[in-house]
Amino acid sequence: MALFAVFVTYDDNANARLQNNETNPMENSLYRDYPYFADVQVMIFVGFGCLLAFFRFYGFSGMVFNFLTAAFSIQWAILMQGFFQFYYDGKIHLAVINLLNAEFACAVVLISFGAVIGKTSPIQLLVMALLEIPIFAVVEWAVLKYIRINDAGGSILIHLFACYFGLGVTFVLYRPSLNDGHVKEITCYQSDILSVLGTLFLWVFWPSFNSALTFKGDDQHRAVLHTFIGLSSSTITAFALSAVFNKRGKLTMADIQNVTLAGGVTVGASVDMMISPVAAYALGIMGCTACFFGYRYLTPFLARRMRIQDQCGIHNLHGLTGLISSTAGICAILLANEETYGPSMYQIFSHRAPPVGDPKLLELQRLIPGLKPGLGRTAEEQALYQVAAIFSTIAAATVGGLLTGLVMKLPVMASPTDEDCFDDMLFFDTPSDFDSSVLKIPLNYNEKESNKVV
Amino acid sequence: MALFAVFVTYDDNANARLQNNETNPMENSLYRDYPYFADVQVMIFVGFGCLLAFFRFYGFSGMVFNFLTAAFSIQWAILMQGFFQFYYDGKIHLAVINLLNAEFACAVVLISFGAVIGKTSPIQLLVMALLEIPIFAVVEWAVLKYIRINDAGGSILIHLFACYFGLGVTFVLYRPSLNDGHVKEITCYQSDILSVLGTLFLWVFWPSFNSALTFKGDDQHRAVLHTFIGLSSSTITAFALSAVFNKRGKLTMADIQNVTLAGGVTVGASVDMMISPVAAYALGIMGCTACFFGYRYLTPFLARRMRIQDQCGIHNLHGLTGLISSTAGICAILLANEETYGPSMYQIFSHRAPPVGDPKLLELQRLIPGLKPGLGRTAEEQALYQVAAIFSTIAAATVGGLLTGLVMKLPVMASPTDEDCFDDMLFFDTPSDFDSSVLKIPLNYNEKESNKVV
Amino acid sequence: MALFAVFVTYDDNANARLQNNETNPMENSLYRDYPYFADVQVMIFVGFGCLLAFFRFYGFSGMVFNFLTAAFSIQWAILMQGFFQFYYDGKIHLAVINLLNAEFACAVVLISFGAVIGKTSPIQLLVMALLEIPIFAVVEWAVLKYIRINDAGGSILIHLFACYFGLGVTFVLYRPSLNDGHVKEITCYQSDILSVLGTLFLWVFWPSFNSALTFKGDDQHRAVLHTFIGLSSSTITAFALSAVFNKRGKLTMADIQNVTLAGGVTVGASVDMMISPVAAYALGIMGCTACFFGYRYLTPFLARRMRIQDQCGIHNLHGLTGLISSTAGICAILLANEETYGPSMYQIFSHRAPPVGDPKLLELQRLIPGLKPGLGRTAEEQALYQVAAIFSTIAAATVGGLLTGLVMKLPVMASPTDEDCFDDMLFFDTPSDFDSSVLKIPLNYNEKESNKVV
Repeated sequence: MALFAVFVTYDDNANARLQNNETNPMENSLYRDYPYFADVQVMIFVGFGCLLAFFRFYGFSGMVFNFLTAAFSIQWAILMQGFFQFYYDGKIHLAVINLLNAEFACAVVLISFGAVIGKTSPIQLLVMALLEIPIFAVVEWAVLKYIRINDAGGSILIHLFACYFGLGVTFVLYRPSLNDGHVKEITCYQSDILSVLGTLFLWVFWPSFNSALTFKGDDQHRAVLHTFIGLSSSTITAFALSAVFNKRGKLTMADIQNVTLAGGVTVGASVDMMISPVAAYALGIMGCTACFFGYRYLTPFLARRMRIQDQCGIHNLHGLTGLISSTAGICAILLANEETYGPSMYQIFSHRAPPVGDPKLLELQRLIPGLKPGLGRTAEEQALYQVAAIFSTIAAATVGGLLTGLVMKLPVMASPTDEDCFDDMLFFDTPSDFDSSVLKIPLNYNEKESNKVV
Repeated sequence: MALFAVFVTYDDNANARLQNNETNPMENSLYRDYPYFADVQVMIFVGFGCLLAFFRFYGFSGMVFNFLTAAFSIQWAILMQGFFQFYYDGKIHLAVINLLNAEFACAVVLISFGAVIGKTSPIQLLVMALLEIPIFAVVEWAVLKYIRINDAGGSILIHLFACYFGLGVTFVLYRPSLNDGHVKEITCYQSDILSVLGTLFLWVFWPSFNSALTFKGDDQHRAVLHTFIGLSSSTITAFALSAVFNKRGKLTMADIQNVTLAGGVTVGASVDMMISPVAAYALGIMGCTACFFGYRYLTPFLARRMRIQDQCGIHNLHGLTGLISSTAGICAILLANEETYGPSMYQIFSHRAPPVGDPKLLELQRLIPGLKPGLGRTAEEQALYQVAAIFSTIAAATVGGLLTGLVMKLPVMASPTDEDCFDDMLFFDTPSDFDSSVLKIPLNYNEKESNKVV
Repeated sequence: MALFAVFVTYDDNANARLQNNETNPMENSLYRDYPYFADVQVMIFVGFGCLLAFFRFYGFSGMVFNFLTAAFSIQWAILMQGFFQFYYDGKIHLAVINLLNAEFACAVVLISFGAVIGKTSPIQLLVMALLEIPIFAVVEWAVLKYIRINDAGGSILIHLFACYFGLGVTFVLYRPSLNDGHVKEITCYQSDILSVLGTLFLWVFWPSFNSALTFKGDDQHRAVLHTFIGLSSSTITAFALSAVFNKRGKLTMADIQNVTLAGGVTVGASVDMMISPVAAYALGIMGCTACFFGYRYLTPFLARRMRIQDQCGIHNLHGLTGLISSTAGICAILLANEETYGPSMYQIFSHRAPPVGDPKLLELQRLIPGLKPGLGRTAEEQALYQVAAIFSTIAAATVGGLLTGLVMKLPVMASPTDEDCFDDMLFFDTPSDFDSSVLKIPLNYNEKESNKVV
């Protein structure tokens, strides 16, 4: 109870700051942004909510803490991102585009949540959101304003940041006794189906996620196509790998719930570029393969040797795929030329557009009215800036995650005991048919019997 | 069976009347209205359906009767509203906007359904819809045509009407023996999760609900922002209150399923006005707090002392919040001035626009082409009309609800016995794993054992 | 495992072919097509997925094989349809409209899947998709290019084709021992609810499905209205029939899951025509009635006498309704005249527009700019072409289905044994609470006891 008092303070704090806001609605922007905003809302609240409800005794927590964390993160991100990106005339100017940006920041928190699900109290999650959002907002602002990169699908800023932040947190929150699994770390038939449902919602609306912040027109169209192709190819690949590498040729639900989505991340960084459909297809296969073998070999390795317990395997679904995506983005930047893109190249790669005063700018502006002056970077320069952004994002995320983990480890945070992990009983008034206590005896002791009763 | 024959008659009746309709499609209106229509459809059929499936032995009924009642209500509302609002040249002119209006009327019926869920047969529900829709259509038509109010989110017409109609019905259908709870009035783990899923769908698409019937452009943009902010703040507040006022600091699923949505209703009446984001935030907190304490204290009080058994607590989620919302709307109207709104004030508060012939109208029409002449009301006059609308709506809803309840209480309506309440067995061929009979023994007698078996 | 190697080859094959593609994005088409594409995506992946998860021990398979088959079918259809319809300059030109067309082809495969669900291995399903998609693409191309029909909702090309193809397949895969039902061919409480949820998603987005490929403007508006009215009336009718023809006046969940949707198919062929709302209403009732009695009498008859085991009753939901719809379409074509439609008649019935060189074409093009020259057909001629299309589609689908069934029956396809049908255990690593073995004893032997334990 005392801990929730702290949380209500943040709430009031948010409220007080919101008094500085002022609505600045523009007719067009609503109709341009709202459909994408609505789709991303479904992904965040329904998609993530169902996906994270995959534990047998932790379904309430997975879905409901996702709801709480998401609602809090979006509010907090509106303020933090507003301060860095939409602050002028002494006010944060609020529109649906802010909400959309805030949902992306919220996705960052929810991905990091995946690393520590089941082992954290809601107050710890809120503290994580409280610290992660400002760090993310600073990094986002610094990267967009000073390094200036191309990253339409957020592979670098969203996925890599979220992954390494989450790994930093879970490194600090390491629980040695859980390395051999927890008796309640199991799924059940209904929770697996619910989680697949979440995957399907994410799958269906991912094209909106990847294309929401691109240029309108052909760029956005390409983003939709590439995301769809990447997801398709990674889905097929995930099924094939799951069956081939299973001892008895059966499918594993965890693969279907997670690995199928790898393609959406992998096409992210180059999603609006002219990479050709086959490249999107290949990226889907590569991301999926990396993600699949990450789950099989890397996640256990990280847990045993590196003290990193990555509960949902976010390093596979967001880290490895994010790295592949970033690399692909750099390749696409190096290969981009006016022959393929025409003059609109300077619109997509806006930092390569000639700077103010360059006579070529006027010439291009005749071809593309409304083209903004850029920095006159070459492809190689832009690629180097992308590399710089990748490394600085990973570094900032890791450090931020470690520090956040230290704060979350404070005794006041009401971290659940090892015994109570993955158990809704600790946080919820559960209905009478819920009984996790039957499994408190070791599972290998009399597995058969306990299953029969429950 | 005989009772369903009656229902089929209504069906044919509806059919016969539909022969007078004629399609009058307009290209623009489809693309303007269809996205909002689709979102509201998801809310009505999926959102309400899942939310009302929260009982352990009444999931089929909750979801399926919602489906039936909604489909019937929309059809019936197309005719009733069509007759009052879209009737000219001897025909009802049908477009997607009619369907959208009919969905709002349908939402009214479904909210009222929440007061009597578990205690009514489908034939009673259809009779309720059959009577509620015309009463609602008359009230809506009278209020919009003669009193003329501002109520973009429907706080007065939808939420207050639905709430007091439902309370009127449940007052008549009072079952004294159920005041201490029913042995089957319980949830289970999966039904709670399903219900949260419904809440999430309502939460995600509520901005579309509140903004569907506003003016396009900045008004609609504000409606989306305010609804989102109101829902966010009420969500955070609901979690905090649920944990703080729980004896053991745990969260209660019923709060998360219902109280989190209070903000969406509370911002309703002023959702398109320039109330500033912080006011939307504060409204969310106020509505949520009123709703939360309503569930804890008012609902039991109404059941014990006033003979009003409000099954889903619609008086908390729609009544109290509707009253707050209406009051806030009146304040916003009183505070509205040209300084804040500019000349577009006469567009939002259309009844304050100068009447035909007033020279000021011509002046304003130069600034805002297409501005319609109004009634030349002052802010105070408009506020008084709002008050009149609130009281007349509540009065009409209560009387209508009481009369409808009397009709529904007729013996021919096949009302379930007290024993059979909250039980799917009465209305459905249930699968073999469904067994509600095990709980027919009093729950307090041997609660432990009965839970173990089921 | 060896069987999945075959599947991976198709995957690579798809990849290799995709190298010939090239993105050809157009700004407008994205914003025109993407909302409908997203809605249809929800129907395909979430709606079908939930609907097909209705078996108690086959929920994983229903939802996951739907996911796999859909992802594969769409990819494959992009190539196949691309080759026939979007192939020029040596390349398939890819846009969101291709994806939308591919989703319709995918819907064909998923409908056919309904006939054989529970009795097929994933490799058989992929083989079915592999063969059905090209046959469908050829038939679609031939009908659209040479016969040239009006079929906006796809009643002929999608529903009739899918139905008779599926019946052809299931005729070959006949399993005599399953004619009296299978011990695991049962639902459970949660799977029934999940399936209703799928129905609701299909119901809500069906207007988008039927209107996605119509002309924009009033045609699309009518398509939305007719579909909604048809679904509404068939829903009410389905509830009434289900209660009236049940022995004890109870509702049957299978009716609610399937028969309610009949109206969406039945209005399909004439969905964009001026058939008047009451005709859409009547079509909904007729389709629903045919579908309902089909489930009661025709499906058992087909299984016992014709060796056609139609698992989900696709002949009722797609065959009978498709025939009614096609007939209605022909009537609407015969009744169409300039008086009702005005000059835009030649836009809807584009093949009735005057051919190039006809002076009437120039006259009409003054009234409707952009009207394309047609074939100068009369209403009767067009009706005859529709009849030809219906018979040739059914013939091609049946033959194609029979041949595909023969391929699927090859021993290498790993068809499950009769014993293992309707059981997830064969294809999935199932969680510990899943235990289908308890039902391997005959159900009628000691039904009571087995139910109690599970």
